[in-house]
Amino acid sequence: MAKITLAAGKAVEPFWHLFPFHFEQAQVAELLKGMRVGTLDAADVAATQAAAAEAKKNDPFGNDPVRHPGLKIHSTHPCNAEVPAALLTESYLTPTDLWYIRHHHPVPDLKGQEAAFRLSVDALAAGGKVLSLSLAQLRALPQHEVLVTLQCSGNRRGDMNKVKKCSGTSWGQGAISTALWKGPRLADVVALAGVAGPDAANKAGALHVCFKGLDAMAASVPVGKALGERGDVILALDMNGLPLVREHGAPLRAIVPGHVGVRNVKWVGEVKLSPDEAVGDWQRGLNYKVLPPGVDSAAGIDVASLPAMQEASVFSGITGVEDAGDGKVDAKGWAWSGGGRGVARVDVSADGGNTWRAARITEGTDQAPGKEWAWVFWECDEVPAAAISGKGGKAHVEVVSRAVDKAYNFQPENAKHIWNTRGLANNSWFRVQATIDAAEK
Amino acid sequence: MAKITLAAGKAVEPFWHLFPFHFEQAQVAELLKGMRVGTLDAADVAATQAAAAEAKKNDPFGNDPVRHPGLKIHSTHPCNAEVPAALLTESYLTPTDLWYIRHHHPVPDLKGQEAAFRLSVDALAAGGKVLSLSLAQLRALPQHEVLVTLQCSGNRRGDMNKVKKCSGTSWGQGAISTALWKGPRLADVVALAGVAGPDAANKAGALHVCFKGLDAMAASVPVGKALGERGDVILALDMNGLPLVREHGAPLRAIVPGHVGVRNVKWVGEVKLSPDEAVGDWQRGLNYKVLPPGVDSAAGIDVASLPAMQEASVFSGITGVEDAGDGKVDAKGWAWSGGGRGVARVDVSADGGNTWRAARITEGTDQAPGKEWAWVFWECDEVPAAAISGKGGKAHVEVVSRAVDKAYNFQPENAKHIWNTRGLANNSWFRVQATIDAAEK
Repeated sequence: MAKITLAAGKAVEPFWHLFPFHFEQAQVAELLKGMRVGTLDAADVAATQAAAAEAKKNDPFGNDPVRHPGLKIHSTHPCNAEVPAALLTESYLTPTDLWYIRHHHPVPDLKGQEAAFRLSVDALAAGGKVLSLSLAQLRALPQHEVLVTLQCSGNRRGDMNKVKKCSGTSWGQGAISTALWKGPRLADVVALAGVAGPDAANKAGALHVCFKGLDAMAASVPVGKALGERGDVILALDMNGLPLVREHGAPLRAIVPGHVGVRNVKWVGEVKLSPDEAVGDWQRGLNYKVLPPGVDSAAGIDVASLPAMQEASVFSGITGVEDAGDGKVDAKGWAWSGGGRGVARVDVSADGGNTWRAARITEGTDQAPGKEWAWVFWECDEVPAAAISGKGGKAHVEVVSRAVDKAYNFQPENAKHIWNTRGLANNSWFRVQATIDAAEK
Repeated sequence: MAKITLAAGKAVEPFWHLFPFHFEQAQVAELLKGMRVGTLDAADVAATQAAAAEAKKNDPFGNDPVRHPGLKIHSTHPCNAEVPAALLTESYLTPTDLWYIRHHHPVPDLKGQEAAFRLSVDALAAGGKVLSLSLAQLRALPQHEVLVTLQCSGNRRGDMNKVKKCSGTSWGQGAISTALWKGPRLADVVALAGVAGPDAANKAGALHVCFKGLDAMAASVPVGKALGERGDVILALDMNGLPLVREHGAPLRAIVPGHVGVRNVKWVGEVKLSPDEAVGDWQRGLNYKVLPPGVDSAAGIDVASLPAMQEASVFSGITGVEDAGDGKVDAKGWAWSGGGRGVARVDVSADGGNTWRAARITEGTDQAPGKEWAWVFWECDEVPAAAISGKGGKAHVEVVSRAVDKAYNFQPENAKHIWNTRGLANNSWFRVQATIDAAEK
């Protein structure tokens, strides 16, 4: 039901495509025939489309890709959109069309000029050279496949807003998605420019690898992660088995597994080794820095001295709660830790944390130790619930999920104590309310 | 005062040695002369020593080293001892004599047979060979220095016991210490046996490096950490600039930076690559596995499927609180994160978390990103306090420290929600109570 209503007032076809087992079944078409209201007039359709095309011409974002109607759009200029909770755990690999979108500018468009595209690689800061590589040259390097979950640093800002308003998009839990990425290792590309690995770069004084997007967005990653054999950093050409789409960074995207979304720069045109972090607010400014709780502005704070967000912490979310009878609930959801640490356990409580039940991990269990870059899915059955309120045989309950990474970092209890003015890094317990039949006495 | 009373009823000399600026100053001797009670009778001393020597002969632990009287001894068979809070942050490098001790057996003693000692290296599982290396051969390899804090997985179990009794030593905050270690890289030693790095080991099917101590203690670490260039794992020959002492693992100790203490195997006699984790309870049993909260026994739990503790999470402690007047407190302490993640911030509250003040990091700030293996010291001034209770112009307050690592993992609020039957991984907010003058109205 939650899934069907996502299509209300919109074309239904994109939703059929998400779940291909429904698609093009004659039986389905037959069933729907009786529900048909009518057919749109062709002239009306043409006029509407012409007006839309005219409006687009004057809009810097007019050339942005058409988005899947299932996405929850927070803004279009630039586009920020999340996966609705009802679809988040429908597929372990998030369908490319449904991936969350967090842009800073209009989506760059190579307009068929892919053959002319050149990646600039500047390794001068580490005693290397400057290179210019075509997409064909990048494809000719050994290709490396990584299964990686990306998450916006502001995911779950909406729950932090409940404590006190933060600045930024009020994300629910859906600014997170997972794909299989493929492309050359960044270390192999930098090696072509004459710098062999992080130790060599460090010794020569280059501490960071800076990425610049065709949209002018810039971010950097320390060389230890960017070039290290354990980092698995690639320049992705493919996503989910197909060439990368414009929306998610075509022709080339930096994939920095285990790090916050913003370091995974899209439409990468430039890779540069540097003694310093990338220039710009995305790296050095407040946008991705966590101020102490209770601090409302950066006045009096030495922002430059605060570390830019890199690795992410441990998160979880609940995407479904069902009444299991007898005053209990079944719940399901996802969990993910940054840094490749992996998820040791997901605990669920429906009585305010008085008792916890360990969930079953159902997907994502076969990742390599220390390289657990992707999320897990979980299910937890028959969690005893305590009513917060209720009447007429109904009980109102709060269900909580709390994941633990393999370094035994636990999600903290209250968003209040980790609140920060930019609303970043909200990995407090995930809480969702539900109404169930009260248990019989 | 807290420091002086540590010596009550004991010889004072070992305490002078801890703080050498006091030591052998004629002025100090002169000051103490008037406090002299008398001199022990030489015959009494000899008789007491003879009786003690006789008792030692029949005690398997009788040959253990003499311990510094400043240590808080929890047990002697085997020895478990922690650094008292009053001394914990007196020196950034913990004096070797004051290092916390967590043994499983009597302390092995080479008794002058160092020249005959051979380290066995078995790399057969990765297609390598078997080697036998003398201490001289290990010293002849390139020596690598690492500044590393080690912490027992059970540190702060005492605070978890307040929720509900766990099994194991009831540690305060002092099962943690820091030293400068030096020795060959484990990767260099394993390379001599024909295996070049973690990827080669992995490909050949060896996933773990197992250490065995001369005391029969065994533990293992995944090859990615053990042999990777970012792991900084060494076989230490020196500690704080001097040859390793028996108490802390002479002649050879595995140093696995950022991982829990138990993986830093002392008195290492054997290094073995293996497709499996080390055999024994320290690796595969309950001793170092975190069960879900509320689970009192391992009955019905598939212990083998739970991950053994490896990387540690983020911790902090308060070692001093002073009345700053006007209803405020000054506090100081330490903070540390496993995994080399480093400490982004330490927050202090004295009003139950209603307000937080970011502490100044005073030591340990110059560590390499991603390789922040050692603790930091911090100070926080004029933290507004709210009285829990009080009378007669005095206020009873609770001061809390809460550290945040650079992946934005926060220490969780309550030990209750992370309680586990073995009392491991208690990184809940550090809480200490103090009495100050009540603020004037």
